[in-house]
Amino acid sequence: MTSHNRQWLLRSRPKGLLQMNNLELVNGNHDVRPLKSGEIRIRNLLFQCAPTMRNWMSEPSNSLYRTIDLGTPVQALAACRVVESRNSRYPVGSRIIISSCWSEYDIIDVSELSPKFIPEGISAIESVGKLGINSLTAYFGITRIGQPRPGETLVVSGAAGSTGSVAAQIGRLKGCRVIGIAGGKNKCDWLMNECGLDGAIDYHTEDVNSALKDHCPNGIDIFYDNVGGQILQAAVDNMAKFGRIILCGQIAAYNQDGPAPAFSNMMRLIYGSIHMQGFLYSDYLDDIPKALNDLTSWMQSGDIITRLDVRSGFENLPSIFNALFDGSNQGSLLAVIDDDAHALA
Amino acid sequence: MTSHNRQWLLRSRPKGLLQMNNLELVNGNHDVRPLKSGEIRIRNLLFQCAPTMRNWMSEPSNSLYRTIDLGTPVQALAACRVVESRNSRYPVGSRIIISSCWSEYDIIDVSELSPKFIPEGISAIESVGKLGINSLTAYFGITRIGQPRPGETLVVSGAAGSTGSVAAQIGRLKGCRVIGIAGGKNKCDWLMNECGLDGAIDYHTEDVNSALKDHCPNGIDIFYDNVGGQILQAAVDNMAKFGRIILCGQIAAYNQDGPAPAFSNMMRLIYGSIHMQGFLYSDYLDDIPKALNDLTSWMQSGDIITRLDVRSGFENLPSIFNALFDGSNQGSLLAVIDDDAHALA
Repeated sequence: MTSHNRQWLLRSRPKGLLQMNNLELVNGNHDVRPLKSGEIRIRNLLFQCAPTMRNWMSEPSNSLYRTIDLGTPVQALAACRVVESRNSRYPVGSRIIISSCWSEYDIIDVSELSPKFIPEGISAIESVGKLGINSLTAYFGITRIGQPRPGETLVVSGAAGSTGSVAAQIGRLKGCRVIGIAGGKNKCDWLMNECGLDGAIDYHTEDVNSALKDHCPNGIDIFYDNVGGQILQAAVDNMAKFGRIILCGQIAAYNQDGPAPAFSNMMRLIYGSIHMQGFLYSDYLDDIPKALNDLTSWMQSGDIITRLDVRSGFENLPSIFNALFDGSNQGSLLAVIDDDAHALA
Repeated sequence: MTSHNRQWLLRSRPKGLLQMNNLELVNGNHDVRPLKSGEIRIRNLLFQCAPTMRNWMSEPSNSLYRTIDLGTPVQALAACRVVESRNSRYPVGSRIIISSCWSEYDIIDVSELSPKFIPEGISAIESVGKLGINSLTAYFGITRIGQPRPGETLVVSGAAGSTGSVAAQIGRLKGCRVIGIAGGKNKCDWLMNECGLDGAIDYHTEDVNSALKDHCPNGIDIFYDNVGGQILQAAVDNMAKFGRIILCGQIAAYNQDGPAPAFSNMMRLIYGSIHMQGFLYSDYLDDIPKALNDLTSWMQSGDIITRLDVRSGFENLPSIFNALFDGSNQGSLLAVIDDDAHALA
């Protein structure tokens, strides 16, 4: 049993970007106690930084997502090592991916959970960064909701992000013409030159609505949206008849107060017979083995490339998280807090 | 060949409700000429009054619906009698349902169209009023998009309308708990006492959001929306996980300038894995025979009741049409312009 355990507690709800004074870094031995039957003690190795965590920090809403209670640690998906166990399925030394929190150690009752093991031969960093929630979300959104057909036009917003870039490349593999929307020339160049997209729109310098008209003269068949706001509006205004809008995220709204706004032009959805659908990767738990097989195969063959943005330091977690929103992040953002995250077993 | 033909021409685009000065009633012999091969001349017997026609009168938009050019007659679905024919499939005397305009007579090239015949034994009024577009739209929306399962909660807005009331009753037949939203005690009483709904919300006197919370403590599984605006917002805020939103109409917005606004709370669509879909009955042309069979059977057995709101007079068309928006209309609104609309063959 460890005698120390640092945590980042949520002390107040951020207005706009998460600020240091919304959090408190507590030293000492919080949440350290003997295990009960069925529980394991984990040492967190790294946290995935996902934009939607910003929603969990907001006032409770009716948007169906979780709310982090004030005075408790920030919740996050973690890769971790089991360091003490009273559950025979998860012996000491095993590595798992599980919903934990910004805490060095955590106690979890895994009696009714089935956290995923990290297989031997792959580091926690690779496991979460390449085959984690972001890639699974891209996979299920495109294949299950988008249902792309060869020759269709797919547009992806947040296309240089860890979810968007995988979504765009799966669409390309399925035979779509793929247009990515991203912020800045570097990201657009990467999409064109490395990811093999057919077009890229830089929303920093281009009018997205007119650029979409140029790139998609017959309209958008599938729109994979990570962003919302004005970019969703521009896409709605350019959807083709029988188009599909895959609602993955609304990052443009996460640092605003209040619920994420929608678009106008509902009549285009009606006369266009547009199918719009929200989803979570966890809607498709039974299909994860197949998804991981497909993704692994595409990544090993080089058909899909990924970028990892690995940063480190438990004390840096707030600023690492904010890199999701300042445009500096390129690729799957991971906050490593223990060098064991590099181990292959 | 007739020598006279009155028409209602659109002269300017309405702001808000359609006004008499937006139109011109022209007498004389407009659009009267000898037929070409393949054409038929029809005498219009009645027009269906559909809220979406108000959209067609607006400035051209990117909402994918048609626009009525200024100086041309108002377009409308009509039941009519063929009075002259140069197309052997449609001999003189036959009755058809076709897209025509507010004109006593019209010339239509049916070479590449397949307008529906009105069968013997049924009047044009019954054919359009009971088995017309409104009922078909309700049928396809509920069965194809809603896909109701017994025990699910269905909410219908504009529930006392000709589409909404059929949608609500089909949901009831499929085993759903059905809650209708309508304006006024009379309409709500009709929904409860005649249509057999499980609950009714009067948006004139009740707060729709809190009423939905009361009626749907486990959330809304299926929302059939004819209205949009604040009622759509209230429904989005109360959708259950994996809910379906059927976008049929947005009548709350049809008399406003600009595109129909949407709702906020996009995150509820994402975390709720909500499926929202627009559609037109014409997306399902191949399935119309089965739909008409089902609807006929349900109406003959009394499982589905319908109301017709039959008004008359070519010169009254504008005011009849506006009854769609003033709350006075109850049931399928038909504007009869010729007594032949009552004939059974």
